[in-house]
Amino acid sequence: AFGIYLATLEITSQTNIREHLSNAARYLISCRPTAVNLSWAVNYVLEKLNSNLSSKSLSETALSVATEICEQEKGYCKQIGEHGLKLIESLSEKKNGEPVNILTHCNAGWLATIDYGTVTAPVYLAHDKGIPLHVWVDETRPRNQGAKLTAWELGQHGVPHTLIPDNTGGHLMQQKMVDIVLTGSDRTTRGGDVANKIGTYLKALAAYDNNVPFYSLFPSTSIDFGIVDGVKEITIEERDPEEVTNISGLADGRIQSVRVCPENTSAANYGFDITPARLITGLITERGICRATEKAIKEMFSDKFK
Amino acid sequence: AFGIYLATLEITSQTNIREHLSNAARYLISCRPTAVNLSWAVNYVLEKLNSNLSSKSLSETALSVATEICEQEKGYCKQIGEHGLKLIESLSEKKNGEPVNILTHCNAGWLATIDYGTVTAPVYLAHDKGIPLHVWVDETRPRNQGAKLTAWELGQHGVPHTLIPDNTGGHLMQQKMVDIVLTGSDRTTRGGDVANKIGTYLKALAAYDNNVPFYSLFPSTSIDFGIVDGVKEITIEERDPEEVTNISGLADGRIQSVRVCPENTSAANYGFDITPARLITGLITERGICRATEKAIKEMFSDKFK
Repeated sequence: AFGIYLATLEITSQTNIREHLSNAARYLISCRPTAVNLSWAVNYVLEKLNSNLSSKSLSETALSVATEICEQEKGYCKQIGEHGLKLIESLSEKKNGEPVNILTHCNAGWLATIDYGTVTAPVYLAHDKGIPLHVWVDETRPRNQGAKLTAWELGQHGVPHTLIPDNTGGHLMQQKMVDIVLTGSDRTTRGGDVANKIGTYLKALAAYDNNVPFYSLFPSTSIDFGIVDGVKEITIEERDPEEVTNISGLADGRIQSVRVCPENTSAANYGFDITPARLITGLITERGICRATEKAIKEMFSDKFK
Repeated sequence: AFGIYLATLEITSQTNIREHLSNAARYLISCRPTAVNLSWAVNYVLEKLNSNLSSKSLSETALSVATEICEQEKGYCKQIGEHGLKLIESLSEKKNGEPVNILTHCNAGWLATIDYGTVTAPVYLAHDKGIPLHVWVDETRPRNQGAKLTAWELGQHGVPHTLIPDNTGGHLMQQKMVDIVLTGSDRTTRGGDVANKIGTYLKALAAYDNNVPFYSLFPSTSIDFGIVDGVKEITIEERDPEEVTNISGLADGRIQSVRVCPENTSAANYGFDITPARLITGLITERGICRATEKAIKEMFSDKFK
């Protein structure tokens, strides 16, 4: 996104180009204090632009680096899918072909990432292989990315799914109606703590309490190797309270917004929470599946620890 | 409610009066398979009517029994408030008068019960005594009883509060922004398991994981002394999926409904979940506070176990 953004910039002055780029980078990074892919990508593009000062080839370089990142992430998602597929296959065998019930939170599909998505990658691969499965889709308040994006994506792909309020997952797990929980990650520490959409932590607690495997799926570009403790070290983004007090949806053929509480009610809107590593069965990246421990992460990503 | 319902019935035939009453009772009880107060109240009224067959005095008896139940529940709520107040006072002392942060789910206020409410009873008493406090109000999807009822009630009473999506409580507890969780109960087993609004279990898990005290407040008429294991023995009511796919609220000065997911998305709507006794710090009834164990419940309600 940053590469494309830079490629489309109207750069009016050659002299302050570096300052302009650095401001733009700072601005983009500040948009998402919790997620780490964006700052990784922005810094990666900046680095590539560093030795190039002509504005024409700057745009070209930015676009080509953006395309390169895009292709790489596509590849990562596909590999995540292949690793995750094995888990679904194994659950399907255990259940003698009864549908595997997967619960997911928010959207970690191709609308949020690229082509395959992260969480959806193994789901699509398994479905396309003919493995019977069914996805419980958390609506994911306040922005309803589950209801609006994930349900739509799965519908487009023909994957059986059921929309549920975010409150429902615990009951489903108590009643043994969930075989595996698959969620994404906006930032993973080298200790295995995962920052993801607010509410993920509650699902991880329920999974742990009911012996349901809980996996976090993400490209390694989501790992922040510089930090260990997610609760203490990750800033949780606060968003507009109006996303909580007002809900938009379709009425009379157009998108409308309704207020769900009294006029003078104030609201809080935290974007993410931290799922501690101890609740996570495993992390699935393009490199494979590993335990959510610093030791396992260091082994799988030894090249990142020098 | 049943008493009033019976009192307003047009009873056209004396001969089939018992059959009529028994059908009406069955219908009313079937409306809420999870909650137990309703069936308790219906059966209580039926019993009182049993020896009375004149339709005129039937209505009068029904109304007077209904009023009696109402008065009794009011007294219970007040007593629950007084017992719960002590907890809030003690937290306030520990915090040296910094506001006590209370998290609640759904509506267990005077809109749902009578006069004081159950969960709100100690909140109102503490606030009226000048103890600084603040309530985190779970919006409580899908019906938004928190956003629509609890936020309004607290606002009417002048109690500081903030509306939050149901996904938020885990994060707040991780960040030590919750001092106590107070929720209601639709049915409590003699083992101390609590059936309450869907999502309560997730908050109890988060409270347990973060050492935040979690209390369930209810009149003893919510206790089902006949069962022990909530997960196995309590039927969880399923409601209309349209409550999930469509959300109503205020727009352009009138109540409107918007659809939050694609047209063909199917949804599931479970009304309650079970919070296992092991996650509950204590139960608060009109008789006092006791641990959520069969032993403690038997001690406090020894007259109910004969």
